[in-house]
Amino acid sequence: MMENAPQEPAPRDTAKRLIRDLDRATLATSLDGWPYASLVLVTVAPDGAPLLFISNLAQHTANLKKDSRLSLLFDGTAGLAEPLTGPRVTVLGRAAPIKDEALLASYVARHPSSGIYAGFPDFNLYRVEIERAHLVAGFGRIDWIEGAELLQRA
Amino acid sequence: MMENAPQEPAPRDTAKRLIRDLDRATLATSLDGWPYASLVLVTVAPDGAPLLFISNLAQHTANLKKDSRLSLLFDGTAGLAEPLTGPRVTVLGRAAPIKDEALLASYVARHPSSGIYAGFPDFNLYRVEIERAHLVAGFGRIDWIEGAELLQRA
Repeated sequence: MMENAPQEPAPRDTAKRLIRDLDRATLATSLDGWPYASLVLVTVAPDGAPLLFISNLAQHTANLKKDSRLSLLFDGTAGLAEPLTGPRVTVLGRAAPIKDEALLASYVARHPSSGIYAGFPDFNLYRVEIERAHLVAGFGRIDWIEGAELLQRA
Repeated sequence: MMENAPQEPAPRDTAKRLIRDLDRATLATSLDGWPYASLVLVTVAPDGAPLLFISNLAQHTANLKKDSRLSLLFDGTAGLAEPLTGPRVTVLGRAAPIKDEALLASYVARHPSSGIYAGFPDFNLYRVEIERAHLVAGFGRIDWIEGAELLQRA
């Protein structure tokens, strides 16, 4: 008798895992219409929305102030000999600054060195409202996922 | 007597080193105006221009066909406990498909698994003409570099 094959995780679950587990991402923003990629450290709100803590002096923040549309690449392929066989997810969303001491504390808990500038007036917490996400779970294994599917339900 | 401090590499040299040494980058393209970040494997032409080898079936290729403007983040911070203290460079440029057997061979030499699809009709080599680059050599150490400074001179 054949055993049942182990079930693959649902695309939504793979995407949620990448977003929750990775502490950094590549941010894509628009520099006056030109796509601009930069490194950010991230964490997630309890509902699964990514959080950034970025400086007004940084190019990506200037970009977001003009156009709040962004994407974040959460890349789970680090260390693989064949990166294109590994999982990564592009989250498309919009960023807005928020004042939330509890969320800021959770960000600093994950990134202790950010505590140094947590009180600087030019640094702000941004919450990313996910519109949809594009998961590449491996070579040719590609899915679009709606944002609502990635958030925690009560 | 004080010894001379060891000289820091010029921003241009740090940027060139990252572009030449890293075999992967995050590509930012425009998805109908929305910034879209994805993973690509890269190599460089002898003159220092980045090369991509991408499928017409991929979202980033569809994006580039509509708008050739892109950026590539070459991230030299992997493995650092404090990534924001490490070097990374955002290359802004335009991608155009080229037919060049020698450059394709150099790409496949760096990424042997790409040899499997080197003959597939939907895969094409793209050369990136660098317009300028934004180097972050560490926290707050930021420079813009003109594209011409990053290419090899005869």
